Amino acid sequence: MSARPPELTALHLRMAELSDLHSLDLLLFWDQQTVMPPAGAEARAERAATVARVVHARESDAELGTLLETLVDWAESEDPDADDVRLVHWARRDFERSVRVPVELAADITKAKSLGQQAWQEARAANDFGRFRGALARHIELRHRYVECFEGHEHPYDVLLDDFEPGLTTAELRPLFQGLREALVPLVTAAGRPDQPRNGGVFHGHFPVVDQQVALLDMLEAVGFDPDGWRLDPTVHPFAAGIAPRDIRLTTKYDEGDLAVALYSGLHEFGHGLYESATDPALFRTSLDTPVSLGVHESQSRTWENVIGRSRAFSAWLLPRLHASLPGALPDVDATGLYRALNTVQPSLVRTDADETTYNLHIILRFELELALTEGSLSVDELPDAWDEGMERLLGVSPPGPADGVLQDVHWGAGLFGYFPTYTIGNLMASQLWERLSADVPDVEQRIENGDFAPVREWLREHVHRHGRKFPPRELLRRVTGSELSAEPFLRYLREKLADAGVLA
Amino acid sequence: MSARPPELTALHLRMAELSDLHSLDLLLFWDQQTVMPPAGAEARAERAATVARVVHARESDAELGTLLETLVDWAESEDPDADDVRLVHWARRDFERSVRVPVELAADITKAKSLGQQAWQEARAANDFGRFRGALARHIELRHRYVECFEGHEHPYDVLLDDFEPGLTTAELRPLFQGLREALVPLVTAAGRPDQPRNGGVFHGHFPVVDQQVALLDMLEAVGFDPDGWRLDPTVHPFAAGIAPRDIRLTTKYDEGDLAVALYSGLHEFGHGLYESATDPALFRTSLDTPVSLGVHESQSRTWENVIGRSRAFSAWLLPRLHASLPGALPDVDATGLYRALNTVQPSLVRTDADETTYNLHIILRFELELALTEGSLSVDELPDAWDEGMERLLGVSPPGPADGVLQDVHWGAGLFGYFPTYTIGNLMASQLWERLSADVPDVEQRIENGDFAPVREWLREHVHRHGRKFPPRELLRRVTGSELSAEPFLRYLREKLADAGVLA
Repeated sequence: MSARPPELTALHLRMAELSDLHSLDLLLFWDQQTVMPPAGAEARAERAATVARVVHARESDAELGTLLETLVDWAESEDPDADDVRLVHWARRDFERSVRVPVELAADITKAKSLGQQAWQEARAANDFGRFRGALARHIELRHRYVECFEGHEHPYDVLLDDFEPGLTTAELRPLFQGLREALVPLVTAAGRPDQPRNGGVFHGHFPVVDQQVALLDMLEAVGFDPDGWRLDPTVHPFAAGIAPRDIRLTTKYDEGDLAVALYSGLHEFGHGLYESATDPALFRTSLDTPVSLGVHESQSRTWENVIGRSRAFSAWLLPRLHASLPGALPDVDATGLYRALNTVQPSLVRTDADETTYNLHIILRFELELALTEGSLSVDELPDAWDEGMERLLGVSPPGPADGVLQDVHWGAGLFGYFPTYTIGNLMASQLWERLSADVPDVEQRIENGDFAPVREWLREHVHRHGRKFPPRELLRRVTGSELSAEPFLRYLREKLADAGVLA
Repeated sequence: MSARPPELTALHLRMAELSDLHSLDLLLFWDQQTVMPPAGAEARAERAATVARVVHARESDAELGTLLETLVDWAESEDPDADDVRLVHWARRDFERSVRVPVELAADITKAKSLGQQAWQEARAANDFGRFRGALARHIELRHRYVECFEGHEHPYDVLLDDFEPGLTTAELRPLFQGLREALVPLVTAAGRPDQPRNGGVFHGHFPVVDQQVALLDMLEAVGFDPDGWRLDPTVHPFAAGIAPRDIRLTTKYDEGDLAVALYSGLHEFGHGLYESATDPALFRTSLDTPVSLGVHESQSRTWENVIGRSRAFSAWLLPRLHASLPGALPDVDATGLYRALNTVQPSLVRTDADETTYNLHIILRFELELALTEGSLSVDELPDAWDEGMERLLGVSPPGPADGVLQDVHWGAGLFGYFPTYTIGNLMASQLWERLSADVPDVEQRIENGDFAPVREWLREHVHRHGRKFPPRELLRRVTGSELSAEPFLRYLREKLADAGVLA
C-alpha cells in the first residue's frame, strides 16, 4: 500500500465542504416545505439559486478535476474496497457529470423546470392537457440535449436513468418490467376488488390531527424514531430529509377521515430516515455520506411501509398499540382482519393512492411512455391517448380526464424523466433484501410481533445503511443477496402474502 | 451623472450572493435555536463553519477589492445619497474590515469564542470566576491583536465599538454615559422600590403556555405581526431573525408564573422584526439590506417594548384585550394600575431582569469595566471586585456571588467587547426618535389607545426602516431628528413617565 497522497487530504477537504453545502440545500428545502412563512417563497428562490451556484462552481472546479486525475493512479494501486478508493471513484463520476453539461444548458433546464411546474399546475387545475403540452415538449427537447452531453451509452434513456439509479440500463429494465407486467396483470385480475375502499376502509373514521400525532409518534418511537436526533412535521407532500445522521427530519400529512394516510406515510418516511441516520460515521462529510440511489432509498421506505408495515406480525403488534393510543376510535376489527384489509387490492386511477399489488403497474406505464417519448415513437400530442389506453390495458380503469390521468404526477412537470422506474426498483429490492434478512434473522416475524424491531434495524444498518454511497446499487445488491435485480422475490412475496391474508383465493 | 459602470453590475452580483449567504447563516442559527433536534449540534457546527468560510472567502476576495477601487472615482462624481454610492461605501468598509484581519487571527478568535463560552458556562454553573479567568485574559489579548490590525483610531476601544455601532467613539461615549449616570443614580434612589416585584407583580399568576401563545399572538397581530410573512417560536434566549423581508422569525420564551416575560420579550422582538421587514425593496440583496447597527436595531425593539409597551395609552388598550384572550386569568387591576406596575423601579442584580429605569446603569458599569480592561488600568484578577464595587456604587446592591454578578452575561464569554454600549445607545435613540414621531403624529397616544398602530409603523418605516444600512447610525439620527446622540430626551421621557405613572412622587 502506497503512502496517503496529499491530494487525498485536499480532496477530503473539498468533499467535506460539498457535503455541508448539499446539507444546507436540503435544509432550505425542508424549511420551505414545513416552517417557512408562505410569503417568503420569492426571496427563498433567490437564496436557493445562490447555494446551487456555489455548489455547482465547486463541483465543476477545474482544480478538482486535476486533483482527481492525480488520484486515479493511486486508487488503482489500492484495495478497491477501501473507502478512499471508492471516494475517488464517486468524486470522479460527480465531477464528470458536472462538467459535461454546459452552464447555458443547465440554466435552460432550471428555467424549464420552474416554468414546467407552473404549466403543469395550471393544466392540472384546468383538467386540460393542452396547457401543459408546450412545456412537456420543451422538457423532452432539453432531455435530448442533455443526453448528447454524455458518451458511451447504449440507449439515450440510460443517461436519464443513471442520474437516479447509477448503472441501471434500458436493456436491463425492459425485460425486467415486461416480466413483472405479465405476472401482475393476471394477479390484479384475480385478487382485485374494485368495489373495496383503500386499505379495506379499516382506518376510515374521524381522527383529529392532534390524536393522530400522538398515535403516529408512539408507533414511530417504537420502531426506532429517536426524539433526540429526529423530528416530525406536517407538510403537503411527505418526504424525509437527512440534514445530518443525528438530524433526521420526517414529514407526513394527516387526513382526518383516514388514519392510514399518516400511519403509512409515516412508516414510509421512517424507512428513508433510518437509512440516512445509519451511514458509517467514517463516511460523514465525504461524497459517500448519502444514500446511493433512489431505488435503494425506496427499498428502505417500502420495507417499513409494506414488507413490515402490512405484515401479519406487524398487524398483530400494531392493533393493541393503536387501541391504547386512540381509545375507542378504531373500528371493530381483529389483527387478522387488519392484516387482510391492509393488503386489499383494487385497481385505481392515481399512483400515489395505489395499493402494493397494483402500484408497479402504474410505474410500468410511465416507463413505457417515457421510453416511447425518448425514442420518438410517441409524440407529445399522442401521450394522453396512450396514457388512457395503458391504464385500460394494465389496470382496467379509464381516467375521467387528464387531471386524474396523464397530469397526475409532478415529475414530468419538473422535467424528471428516468425517475419513475426507481420506485419499482425499490419495491423489487425490498423483497430481495427481505429474503436475505429473513434467512439471517429466522425469528424476525416473532420479533416484530413482540415489538422488537432492533434486529431488523441492525441488519439493515450492517448490510445496507452503513455503506452510504460506497457501493453502486447493483454491487450492493449482489454483495448482500448474491443475486442480480429480479422481480421473482417480489412476486413470490406478494403471492404468498395475498394468499396468507385471504385476499387471493 | 456618468454612465453606470459595468463594475457596478459586477458588484451587485457579488453583493446579492453575499446577502443570500448571510441569510443562510442566519437561518442555520434560527434553525438550531428553535427546531433542530438537539443531537444535530455537532454536525451543525461543521456546516455553519463551512458557510462562514465561503462567506469570508467572498468578502475578502482580492477581485472584489479591485472592483471597489475602480468604483471609488465613479462614486465621488455621483449624488452622495444615491443608493449605489452608499453601497460602494459600505462594501469598501466591509472589504477593508475583512482583509485587515489575518486568517490565523480570525481562526484564533473563533476558537477562543467557543472555548470561552464553554469556560464561562462552567464557571457560572460553579459560581467560580477563577474558572473563567484564563479564557477572559485570552479574549483580551486577542482583542488587542485585533485592534492592532486597524489604523486611524483615537482609542483602541473605538475599533471594538465600530464593529457594532459604526462611527461611535470612546471620546463621545464617555461624557454621554457620565451624564446619564449622574442623572440616573439619584433618579433610581428617588423612585426605586427594592421591596416590589418585577412589573409590580401585575402579571404574576399561573398562565399555561398554550394560553400565553394565544394571548401573545393576538397582541402581536394587532400591532403588526403578519402571519403570512412572520412566524413565532419558543426558544431559550429570545431573538428575531429576518431571513427575508417577508420571512421574519420571532422567538420568545414563556414563564408560566409570569405572563410579562412572553408579552414583553414578544414586543421587543417584534420591534426588531418590524425593522427587518420594512427595508426598501430596492435595497434587497445588496449589502444595504440589513439594519445599520445594533444601537439602531435596539432602538426599534425598545420603542415597542418600553416606549409604546409601557405607556399609559398601551396599558389602556392592552388590558381589555388580555381579559378577552385570557378570561379570568388576570389579577384585578385597572389600566392605570397596570401602567404604574409596568413602570416599577427596583435596583436588581441581573441586567436582563432590570426595569427600564435601572437598565442603563447595568450597561454603564460594563462600559466602564471594558474600557479599564482595554486600557490596562484594570486586571482580569481585579475584575470581580470592581464589578461588585460598581453594583454597590451605581445600584446599591451587592451580588451574593459571581454567577449573579460578573459572570451573568454570555458576552464576555464569547469575547464580545464593545457590544454592551449599543443597548444604551438604543434606549437613548428610541426616545430621540419618539420625540420626533410624536411631533409628526400629534395624536399618537390616542391612536395607540384605539389599537391603531399603523401610523407608528408607517413613521418608523419611512424614517428609519426603509433605509436599511444606507446611512450610518449617527447620520440617520441627524437626518431624522436634527440632533446628535443625547441622553436628555431619554431622561425627560423617563422622568415624565415615572411622574405620570405615580412611581416618582
